[in-house]
Amino acid sequence: MTNLGPIPPDFVSRDGELCIGGKTASHVVAEAGRTPLFAYDMAVVERRLRELRAVMPQRLAIHYALKANPFAPLLRHMRGLVDGFDVASGGELAAALNAGMDAACISFAGPGKDDAELAAAIEAGVTINLESHNEARRAIAIAGKLAIRPRLAVRVNPAFDLRGSGMKMGGGARQFGVDAPLVPALVQEIIGSGAEWRGYHVYAGSQSLDAAAIVDAQSATLDMVAGLAEATKAPVPHCNLGGGFGIPYFSGDASLNIATIGAALRRQLSQLNNALRDTSFAIELGRWLVGEAGVYLTRVIDVKSSHGETFVITDGGLHHQLAASGNFGTVVKRNYPLAIANKFGAATASDPQHIVGRLCTPLDRLAHKAMLPLVAVGDLVAVFCAGAYGATASPENFLGHGPAVELLV
Amino acid sequence: MTNLGPIPPDFVSRDGELCIGGKTASHVVAEAGRTPLFAYDMAVVERRLRELRAVMPQRLAIHYALKANPFAPLLRHMRGLVDGFDVASGGELAAALNAGMDAACISFAGPGKDDAELAAAIEAGVTINLESHNEARRAIAIAGKLAIRPRLAVRVNPAFDLRGSGMKMGGGARQFGVDAPLVPALVQEIIGSGAEWRGYHVYAGSQSLDAAAIVDAQSATLDMVAGLAEATKAPVPHCNLGGGFGIPYFSGDASLNIATIGAALRRQLSQLNNALRDTSFAIELGRWLVGEAGVYLTRVIDVKSSHGETFVITDGGLHHQLAASGNFGTVVKRNYPLAIANKFGAATASDPQHIVGRLCTPLDRLAHKAMLPLVAVGDLVAVFCAGAYGATASPENFLGHGPAVELLV
Repeated sequence: MTNLGPIPPDFVSRDGELCIGGKTASHVVAEAGRTPLFAYDMAVVERRLRELRAVMPQRLAIHYALKANPFAPLLRHMRGLVDGFDVASGGELAAALNAGMDAACISFAGPGKDDAELAAAIEAGVTINLESHNEARRAIAIAGKLAIRPRLAVRVNPAFDLRGSGMKMGGGARQFGVDAPLVPALVQEIIGSGAEWRGYHVYAGSQSLDAAAIVDAQSATLDMVAGLAEATKAPVPHCNLGGGFGIPYFSGDASLNIATIGAALRRQLSQLNNALRDTSFAIELGRWLVGEAGVYLTRVIDVKSSHGETFVITDGGLHHQLAASGNFGTVVKRNYPLAIANKFGAATASDPQHIVGRLCTPLDRLAHKAMLPLVAVGDLVAVFCAGAYGATASPENFLGHGPAVELLV
Repeated sequence: MTNLGPIPPDFVSRDGELCIGGKTASHVVAEAGRTPLFAYDMAVVERRLRELRAVMPQRLAIHYALKANPFAPLLRHMRGLVDGFDVASGGELAAALNAGMDAACISFAGPGKDDAELAAAIEAGVTINLESHNEARRAIAIAGKLAIRPRLAVRVNPAFDLRGSGMKMGGGARQFGVDAPLVPALVQEIIGSGAEWRGYHVYAGSQSLDAAAIVDAQSATLDMVAGLAEATKAPVPHCNLGGGFGIPYFSGDASLNIATIGAALRRQLSQLNNALRDTSFAIELGRWLVGEAGVYLTRVIDVKSSHGETFVITDGGLHHQLAASGNFGTVVKRNYPLAIANKFGAATASDPQHIVGRLCTPLDRLAHKAMLPLVAVGDLVAVFCAGAYGATASPENFLGHGPAVELLV
C-alpha cells in the first residue's frame, strides 16, 4: 500500500477500484459524462452529522457554512440535514433561500457587506452578524427606510484566538467583528434603535485538529459572552460559537476528536451563568461537514519522463483544485490524499511519480514525488478531501479549460 | 508621497485623482456602472509595444500569450497590434480564433492537450507545440483520421533555466516539453509522418527583471536550436524563443531593460549559424504587454479600528485579484502597487492602514500596513499591475460575491 495521506475511511475498494457512494469511480465518471469532476458523497455528510449529533448537546444547533461548498444540489440536501445556514455574501444568501432554508435559520457574516446586501438580508428576515459600528448604523438606517424590524447580532472579535488553527480569525487586530471592549456600547445602540436583538457571533479560527484548543476557545467564548451579557444587561437570544473543526489533509494528521469537544460542551452548557440560561447556541461548520465527502476525479492524459523523473499529466489541475496544488493559503506545499482510482490499493511502483495538472504553469502540481501504483494513460486520479474549498475556491477560468462537472452521489 | 510600490508611470493625477487612459477613476467607474472593476488602458499596451519594436530586431515577431488576459475585447484589440497569439487550451484557441487572429499566426502549447483539443487545433490549422512523444503520436493519428496535414513543432525542455525567474520552466525535470536529448528522434518521427514541420518552442521561465539573464537564456536557446538543426539535418522554419519578460510589482523592483535584450538579440540573430538562416523567430509575451495596463478599482465599504490598527474594507478582494493578496505562487507576501484613486498623490497619513477585501477569510488582504493617505468610506482603492493574471487567475465564485466588471479604456 501507498503513502497517499489520510484518505477518508468512507472510501473503499471494490475489485481494485475506488467506490464513491457505492458506485465505482468509472461509473461515477460515466454518470458525469466526462472528467474532471467533483463527486460529493452525501452519505459521508450524513454519517458525519450523525456522529456529531450523537456527541454534542441536544441544545446545540448545527449550522452549515455555505462558503465551503455552495453547489446548489448539495445545499438542497443540506437544508434537510442541518438546523441553519451561515452565509457570507448576498450571493450566498440568495443560494441559501433558493435551497429552501427558512430565513429565521440563516445568519449573514462578513466584513464588507454593502447596502444592497444589508437590504436583501433585512427584507429576507435573516440575522445579520454586524461587523462594525458603521455597518450597524447602515443596517438600522436601511431597515428604517424599508420599515422592517431588522434581526441584528454582533460579531465579536475576541481577545483570544483558536490555538494552532490553520487560520486565526480572532485575537489581536483583525478585520472581523468588533473588538470585545467596544461591544457593549454597540449593543445598547442596536437595542435602542428598536431592532430585534439576536445576540453574538464569535469565530476564533478554522481548520483545527486539536480538540483541546477548540474546547478552550468555546469555553473562552462562553465566558466572554456571559461577560457581555453582564456588561450590557441585555439578554442573549442566540450565540453562534463559530466553527474551527478541521479535517486531516496530510500524512500524520489525525481526525479531530469530536467526542472530547461534545463532552466539554455538554459540561459547559450545563454550568452556564444565569444570563445565558435561555440562550440558543449554534456551531457553524463547513469544511468538517462536507470536506471529506468530496472526491476530485481527473483522467491521465500523458505520462512522460524528464531527467529520470516521471510526470503524470492529468486533464485537471489547480483551476479546479487550487488548495490541493498548495497555492491557496499554505506556506509549505504538501500532498493532499490521493490515489489512482482504478488501481485503488494496488502495489506501489518502485519509483515516485509527480502528478500534475494540464495548465501551462509549474504551479500546477497535484502531488510531488508520490509513491503510488504505476500510472498509465487513461487511469483515473482521485484527489480526496475535495468537498470543501475545491471547486468554489479555485480559478476555474484560468487558461480556458473551463470548470469541472459537479455531482452528488 | 507614499510608499505604494512601483506604480507604472503611465498613470498620472488630474486634480488629485488617478487618471486611466485620460479618464478619471470616478469617470471609469461611472462607465463600468459599478465597482469592483478591472480597467485596461490599451494606450499603455500600445506604448509598450512601440517601445519593444523600437529595440527588437525587425526579424523578430511579437506574439501575445493569451493566458495573461483573455478578455475578449482586449484580444480583438491585440489582434491588430501583435504578430501572433500563443494559446494554452482549447478554450484559448477558440478565443484567439474568435478575436480574428489568422490561424497561421497561432501556436498552441500546454502539457495536457486532450484529443479534442488536438483535433480542434489541426482543423483550425494552428501550429501545435508538441510536449511529448505520446502527444506527437496522438496528433499524427488524429490528423490522419481528419485527412489534414498538421502543423507540428516541438517544445523543448532545455537543459538550462531562466536564471532568477519567478517561475522556472526549463532546466532539470519538468512536465513541459521534451528533454533536449530526446528531441532529434521525435523530429524525425514527425517529419517522417508527412506532417508540416514547423520547428521549436522553448520557454525557460517567466517574470524576470534581469535583462542579462534573459539575454543568456535566448543565447542558450539559439545555440541549442542550432545544435538540434545540426543533429536532425532538418530545417527550422520557426523558432519561438519564449518570454520571461517581467514587470516590477514590488518596492525596489526596476523595469526590465528591454534595450539590452534587443541589442543582444540583434547581435545574436546577425551571427546565426547557417542552419537558422531562414528561420523566423518570435517571442511570446503576456504579462509584460498587458500587466501594467490594468488597474483594479474597488470601493471602500468600511474603515474600522481593531487593537489600534486601521482596517480599510473594500468591496473587492482575492476573488478578483488573488495574486495581489499574495496567495498565488508567492512565498513571501508583499504589497502590490496601490493607491487611493481619489486621493492620488495626497499626503500620507501618519499611521499605516491595512487594505482588505470583503471576503470572510484572513487571506483576503490587498495591502498590509500600507502608508497611504487617510482613507474614508467611499474612497476608491486602485491596485496596479492588474492587467495580467488578475481576473482570469482568481477564484471569482469564491464566497458568492461574483465577478468584477472588465472594460477597456
